[in-house]
Amino acid sequence: MARPHENHREDVAGRANVEDTPELLAYYADLDRFGAGALWTVANKIEPWEPQSSSVPMLWRWTELREPVLRSVDLVTPEKAGRRVIYLRNPGRDDVAAAVGWIYSGLQVMNPGEAASAHRHSASAIRFILEGAGAYTVVDGHKMTLGRNDFVLTPNGTWHEHAVAAEGSPCIWQDCLDIPFVNAMEANFYEVHPDLTQAVGYAVDDMTKTWGNAGLTPSGGDWAKGYSPMFKYEWAPTYDALQRYAGCTDGSPFDGVMMEYVNPTTNGPVMRTLGASMQMLRPGEHTKAHRHTGSYLYTVAKGSGHSIINGKRFDWSERDIFCVPSWAWHEHVNGSATEDACLFCLSDLPVMRALGLYREQAFGENGGHQPIK
Amino acid sequence: MARPHENHREDVAGRANVEDTPELLAYYADLDRFGAGALWTVANKIEPWEPQSSSVPMLWRWTELREPVLRSVDLVTPEKAGRRVIYLRNPGRDDVAAAVGWIYSGLQVMNPGEAASAHRHSASAIRFILEGAGAYTVVDGHKMTLGRNDFVLTPNGTWHEHAVAAEGSPCIWQDCLDIPFVNAMEANFYEVHPDLTQAVGYAVDDMTKTWGNAGLTPSGGDWAKGYSPMFKYEWAPTYDALQRYAGCTDGSPFDGVMMEYVNPTTNGPVMRTLGASMQMLRPGEHTKAHRHTGSYLYTVAKGSGHSIINGKRFDWSERDIFCVPSWAWHEHVNGSATEDACLFCLSDLPVMRALGLYREQAFGENGGHQPIK
Amino acid sequence: MARPHENHREDVAGRANVEDTPELLAYYADLDRFGAGALWTVANKIEPWEPQSSSVPMLWRWTELREPVLRSVDLVTPEKAGRRVIYLRNPGRDDVAAAVGWIYSGLQVMNPGEAASAHRHSASAIRFILEGAGAYTVVDGHKMTLGRNDFVLTPNGTWHEHAVAAEGSPCIWQDCLDIPFVNAMEANFYEVHPDLTQAVGYAVDDMTKTWGNAGLTPSGGDWAKGYSPMFKYEWAPTYDALQRYAGCTDGSPFDGVMMEYVNPTTNGPVMRTLGASMQMLRPGEHTKAHRHTGSYLYTVAKGSGHSIINGKRFDWSERDIFCVPSWAWHEHVNGSATEDACLFCLSDLPVMRALGLYREQAFGENGGHQPIK
Amino acid sequence: MARPHENHREDVAGRANVEDTPELLAYYADLDRFGAGALWTVANKIEPWEPQSSSVPMLWRWTELREPVLRSVDLVTPEKAGRRVIYLRNPGRDDVAAAVGWIYSGLQVMNPGEAASAHRHSASAIRFILEGAGAYTVVDGHKMTLGRNDFVLTPNGTWHEHAVAAEGSPCIWQDCLDIPFVNAMEANFYEVHPDLTQAVGYAVDDMTKTWGNAGLTPSGGDWAKGYSPMFKYEWAPTYDALQRYAGCTDGSPFDGVMMEYVNPTTNGPVMRTLGASMQMLRPGEHTKAHRHTGSYLYTVAKGSGHSIINGKRFDWSERDIFCVPSWAWHEHVNGSATEDACLFCLSDLPVMRALGLYREQAFGENGGHQPIK
Repeated sequence: MARPHENHREDVAGRANVEDTPELLAYYADLDRFGAGALWTVANKIEPWEPQSSSVPMLWRWTELREPVLRSVDLVTPEKAGRRVIYLRNPGRDDVAAAVGWIYSGLQVMNPGEAASAHRHSASAIRFILEGAGAYTVVDGHKMTLGRNDFVLTPNGTWHEHAVAAEGSPCIWQDCLDIPFVNAMEANFYEVHPDLTQAVGYAVDDMTKTWGNAGLTPSGGDWAKGYSPMFKYEWAPTYDALQRYAGCTDGSPFDGVMMEYVNPTTNGPVMRTLGASMQMLRPGEHTKAHRHTGSYLYTVAKGSGHSIINGKRFDWSERDIFCVPSWAWHEHVNGSATEDACLFCLSDLPVMRALGLYREQAFGENGGHQPIK
Repeated sequence: MARPHENHREDVAGRANVEDTPELLAYYADLDRFGAGALWTVANKIEPWEPQSSSVPMLWRWTELREPVLRSVDLVTPEKAGRRVIYLRNPGRDDVAAAVGWIYSGLQVMNPGEAASAHRHSASAIRFILEGAGAYTVVDGHKMTLGRNDFVLTPNGTWHEHAVAAEGSPCIWQDCLDIPFVNAMEANFYEVHPDLTQAVGYAVDDMTKTWGNAGLTPSGGDWAKGYSPMFKYEWAPTYDALQRYAGCTDGSPFDGVMMEYVNPTTNGPVMRTLGASMQMLRPGEHTKAHRHTGSYLYTVAKGSGHSIINGKRFDWSERDIFCVPSWAWHEHVNGSATEDACLFCLSDLPVMRALGLYREQAFGENGGHQPIK
Repeated sequence: MARPHENHREDVAGRANVEDTPELLAYYADLDRFGAGALWTVANKIEPWEPQSSSVPMLWRWTELREPVLRSVDLVTPEKAGRRVIYLRNPGRDDVAAAVGWIYSGLQVMNPGEAASAHRHSASAIRFILEGAGAYTVVDGHKMTLGRNDFVLTPNGTWHEHAVAAEGSPCIWQDCLDIPFVNAMEANFYEVHPDLTQAVGYAVDDMTKTWGNAGLTPSGGDWAKGYSPMFKYEWAPTYDALQRYAGCTDGSPFDGVMMEYVNPTTNGPVMRTLGASMQMLRPGEHTKAHRHTGSYLYTVAKGSGHSIINGKRFDWSERDIFCVPSWAWHEHVNGSATEDACLFCLSDLPVMRALGLYREQAFGENGGHQPIK
Repeated sequence: MARPHENHREDVAGRANVEDTPELLAYYADLDRFGAGALWTVANKIEPWEPQSSSVPMLWRWTELREPVLRSVDLVTPEKAGRRVIYLRNPGRDDVAAAVGWIYSGLQVMNPGEAASAHRHSASAIRFILEGAGAYTVVDGHKMTLGRNDFVLTPNGTWHEHAVAAEGSPCIWQDCLDIPFVNAMEANFYEVHPDLTQAVGYAVDDMTKTWGNAGLTPSGGDWAKGYSPMFKYEWAPTYDALQRYAGCTDGSPFDGVMMEYVNPTTNGPVMRTLGASMQMLRPGEHTKAHRHTGSYLYTVAKGSGHSIINGKRFDWSERDIFCVPSWAWHEHVNGSATEDACLFCLSDLPVMRALGLYREQAFGENGGHQPIK
C-alpha cells in the first residue's frame, strides 16, 4: 500500500502545516503498514477552499461533428455497435468517458427503417433530437414520436429502444446519460431485453396526452416512480411557454427567461439524477456572470451567440454543444439584435439539490461581466 | 341542560340495547345535572352503519334561474348588496345556507362597467363563468380575464374583487365556497379591503402564463402556499386536454373521461378545502352507478343528458346545476348520440382525502345501473 | 322550502345593507320557488367578522363524575350497552353529542375481567386512562397494556376492543372521538367484528417497542398509514421528556413547557383528525392569554390550578376535564408554588392545520391577562 | 487529447462487438481531433453487467491502530495539524483518501484540556466515540457531551469544533465524512471560523433534550434543514431500544436486529449524504449472505465475531473497523454463544436511496452462506 509521501502545507490558522521530520517520516511509514495515514499531510489537498473542477470548458461544433456522425452509418451496423453513437470527450474526464463532470453525452445516428435493440440499465438518459424526421423511442412499451428539439426520457431501469420510421430521414439523437456517475456510485446494472425488442402496449404518445396537460391530472391516475410519467417533452409547447412567460417576467439577470422541465406529478426534476431546462435569451441580451456547483451541458436549440466561461469566449450556433464545469464563471450573449436564442441545458442539478450541495455566487466586479482572457 | 329523553335501541350484538327502567331513568336525570349522559341511549344514533346525508339531491335549472338572476341587477346595487348574488338552497341544508353538504353556491351577476368591492375571508372560492364577456377578477393584485366555462380561485385569505369591463356584456359567475364548512369549523374571518379596491401589480394573466405550462416550471420560481398559483383555469385547454386524453384511455366506468384540476406545484387539489374536475361523457355514454363520501356540485359545461341520483332521474342541459350528496348512488347519461357532454364538478373531495374519510362503492346489481323510482 | 324571511343588515362599506321593500319581498318569494335566495339578506350572518363558537366553556369535575361513572357498572352490562360510557355534554352542542366543537368525549368504565366487544368505525379515538390498573386495548391484533395518564389510539378503520385483566382494578378510560365531525362530514361507517373479539397476533406492546425509540427506526420498517404506528403513548416517558425539555427552554408564554404527541414516522399529529399535547406549568406559572381556532379538551394529568376562559375562572384538580372553544381567550395558572401541573390536551388542531384554518392571536391588553368577569 | 486506442468487445447480442479495421482506426483518429470517440469501443467497459467496486474489503484492528493514534499526541499539536487525525486507507481508493467507496474515515485523538479550532465545510460528518471521557463537540453553538459509542453529527455547512474537558481522559473520535464524495461532486467549500472558536449559546445537550423524545415534539418547534436537529445519538438509549425491539421481532435474516438512526422530524436519514445504523447479533447468530449497492463502514461497538465478505473471513473484536464495498456479498457471525454483539454501520445509503440507485440481492445457494475462499 506504500505510495510516494505527500505533504500539503498551508501557513494559515486552522489549516495543516506540519513539517517533515525524520521522526514523523518514520511514523508515517508505521501508519502505512496498518492501512492508515496522517490526515495532516493530505488535509489541505482533500479539503480545498472551494471546488476545483477537473473538467475543461469545451465547445463541440455541429459543423465539425455532423459529418463524421453521419459517416458512422456506413461504417458500423447498429447490431454490431450495440448503439451507433459518437460520444463527446472532455480532456479532463477521459478516464470516465464524460463530457463534463459525471455526465456522458453522445450523438446517436440512425437511418430510416433502422432500429436499435432494447435494453435497460441503472443509468438514466435524456435524449434530445438534433436532426431528422421519423425518429421514435419506445420506453417500457410506450412509443413516442420525436421531432427536432424534442427530448425523451429513458429513466433508470426502463426498457428502451430507438428507431427511425421507414418513411423518415436520418435522425440524430443527442444522448445524455449519468453513466459515469452511476459507475462512480458502483451501482450500474445492464440487461439486454430477452426479445431484443419491446411490444408497444399503448396508444402512441399516450403519456404525453395523459400527463402533459397544464393544471390537469388524470382522475384516478397514480404515479409514484422516481421520474416523470411524461417521458417526452416537445419543443413547440416549450417555445410557446417561454414566450408566454417572457410576457410577464424580467427573467433572471444570469439566465434570461428560463424554465425548468419538471415531472408534472411533483414539480420536481424529470429524473432523480438528471435535470433539464430551456432558456431564452432575448434579442441582444447579455446576461451577467455567475457560478454554481454542478455540471452543465448546453445544446443550442435556436439562434447564435457566445458564452464566456471562466474568462474564455465560446461562439456558438444552432446544434452546437458546450459545457460549463462546476463552479465555473459563465455568462451568455445572444448575438442577434432581432431574434431570440434558446439554450437547452442538461445537468446534474437534481443531485446537487437533493444532497444539499448546490451553491451559487454572482460575479461581483466589472458590472457583473468577466474580463476576457 | 335537560332535554327530552332519547333511547335508540338495536337488537344486534355489539350495538346498544338497554331498556328504560325507573332506576335508569333516575340515573339519567342524575347524569344530566353533571353535564353528562349515558352513551348507550344515543350510541346507535351517533354511530350509524353508514353515512346519512341531510342534503337532498337537487337540480337548479338555468332556464328558471337566469331571469331572476339578471333581474337582481335592477333591484340592488353591488354597493348595497356587498355582492349581488342569488344563492342556491338545499331544503336539507337551509340552516347553513349550503347547496349540498357544507358547500355554498351562488350566482353573481354584474353589468358592464360595474365592480364589486375587495374583501377577503377564510372561506375559499372557485368561481365558474356561466355567461357573458369581459368579466375579470383580481386576486392579491393579479388580474385575470375570464370567459365562459373558465374558473378562477380566490383562496382562503386572499384579497379579491370582481368586475366587468365597460365594453363587456352582463356576466354571471357561479360562486362556490366552503363558507358553511369554515363556519362549522368556527374559523371564518372577514375583512373589507381598506381601499375597497386593489391595485393591479402584475401583467394581466401573469399567473397563468407563469404556471400554466405543462411539464415546465419557472426557474427559480417558488410557491409553497396551500393553493395553486395558477389562479385561473381556462376552458379551451381543458376541453383540448379531455380530447387528447380520450384518445388513449377507456375512461372510468363511473365517470367517463375525467380529469382533475390541480395545483401544478403539487399535482394535488387546487385548494385545500375545495377541488374541481371536468369530465367528458362520450356520445351515447351511460356510466355505471357508484357512490362515495363527500359532497358534489355539478355544472353542465357542454351538452345535455341526465343523471340518476339515488334512483331519481334529473334531466340536465347546458348551464344547469345539480348536486350529489355524500354516499348517494349516481350515474350519468349523455343524451346525445353524436356530441360529447361535459360536466364541471366542484366538491370537498380534498377534505375527504386529506382526512382519510374518502370511501367508494360500486353499485353491484342490475348490471351496475340503479332501478329508477 | 319557504322559511321565515331574514335580513341581516350592517351599515359598513363592503357589507350587505339592503332594506326590505315590497318589490324585494316579492322577488324573494320568487327566488324561493326556484330553490334560491338573495345572498345579501344572509351574507352578514354567514360571513361573520370573526368565528362565533356555539360551544360553551365547561368544566366537568372528577369528584362529581367519578361516582356516577362507577355506578354504571351495576346498572348496565357491556353486552347490552355496547360500551359502558358516560359522555360529556356541552349545552351548545347537545344536538351533535359533542363536548366541544366537533369532539365527543366519554368516560368508559370496566371491571376486572370484563371485556367489550370489538368493532370499528370511521371515527378516530384517543383514549386516556384516568384510573385503575390492568386496563388493556387491542387494536388490529396488537395488545397494549395501559396505565394512568397513558393513552391509546384506535384510528379510523381499525378494529378495537377494551378490557381489564382479571387481576386488575376497575378502570376508567376517557374516550375522545371525532364522531360528531365524521358525522358532519357524512362519512361515518360502523362495523361489528365478526367474532366479537380479535385474536392477538403480536407480542404485547410490540408497536411501542418497535416505534417508540427516539431517533431510531426499525430497519426495513415501513409505515405509510394516516396515523401513528406507535398506538400507545405512556405517561412516564412523557413526563420525563417535559422535564428534560424544561431544562433548555423558556417555554411558551401562553402554554408553558408544551410538547405535542406525534407520529414518529412523520413528526406530524398522531392521527389526521385528532391531535394531543401535554403541557407542564411550572410552579407558580401564570401564562398569558391568547386565542386560536380549533376546539380543545383538557384533562388535568397532574396538579391543580385554574384557567380563565373568555373571562371566566375555572378551578381544576387532577382528573378534571374542561374545554376551550374555538377563538376563546384562555390562560392557565398553576395553583402550586412548589409542584408542577400537567395538562393533557386533545384537539382538532390537525384538521385546522391541514386545511389552512388555524389562526392565533395574543391578548394585547392588561399585561396579557384577561379581566375576570 | 489522443490516448491509446481501446476496444472492448463482447460476443453477446445487444453488446458492442466491432472489430478494428484500418478504415475504422482512421475514423477513430478523425473523431479524436473533434473531441469525440466511438461509443462502441468503450460501451462494454462503461456499461458493466453489474457494479464493479474499486474498494477492497478491509479490517483495521484496534489493537494495531490504537497505539500509533495515541502516539500522534506527542508528535503533532492540534494547532499545527489542524486536526490530529490518523485516517484509514483503502488500497483501491488511495487516490481519493477513502476508506471505502466515497467515504473517508479517520481516528482523531485529543488530550484532556485540548481543543481543536472551529471550521466548516460542505462535507458532512458522523463522529463516533471510540474511547475516553470528557469529549465534547460544539456544533453551531450547541455543545454536546460525548461518551463511548455515542456519535455526533457535524452536518454540511455547520461550524464545529472538538475538545476534551480538563478533567477527562485522552479521547478518540472515529470521524466519518463524505469528503471524497463532495470532492467528486466538485462541491467542497472550506472555511476557518473567524474567531477560531465558537461561543456556546444554549444549554448543554439542548438539542438532545428537545428533539430526542420518542413520539413527542416541541410545540411550536420548527426544523426544515436537511439534517437531524438531534445532533447527538447516545449509546445507552440505542442499546436499550435494540433490546426492546428484539423482544418483538425476528429481525432480518441478513442483519439480525437492526435499527437505523433517523432525523426525528422526517424519520429519514440523519443527514442527506451519510446514514448510520446499529445492529445487534444475538448470541450465536449467523446471518445469511446478501449484497447491495452502497459503501459500508462498520465499527464494532460491542462483542466479537467475524464477517465473511466476498468469501473472505474477517475476525473482529470491540473497536475494530471494517468495510463492505458496493455489491460485495457479506454475512455476519456473533462469536459468542452467550453475549450479543453490536455493529455500528456508517454508509452512503441515503444517497443510494435518494437517487434510486439502491439494489439488493440475497445469496441463493448453499443455504444462504458463502463458501470461504
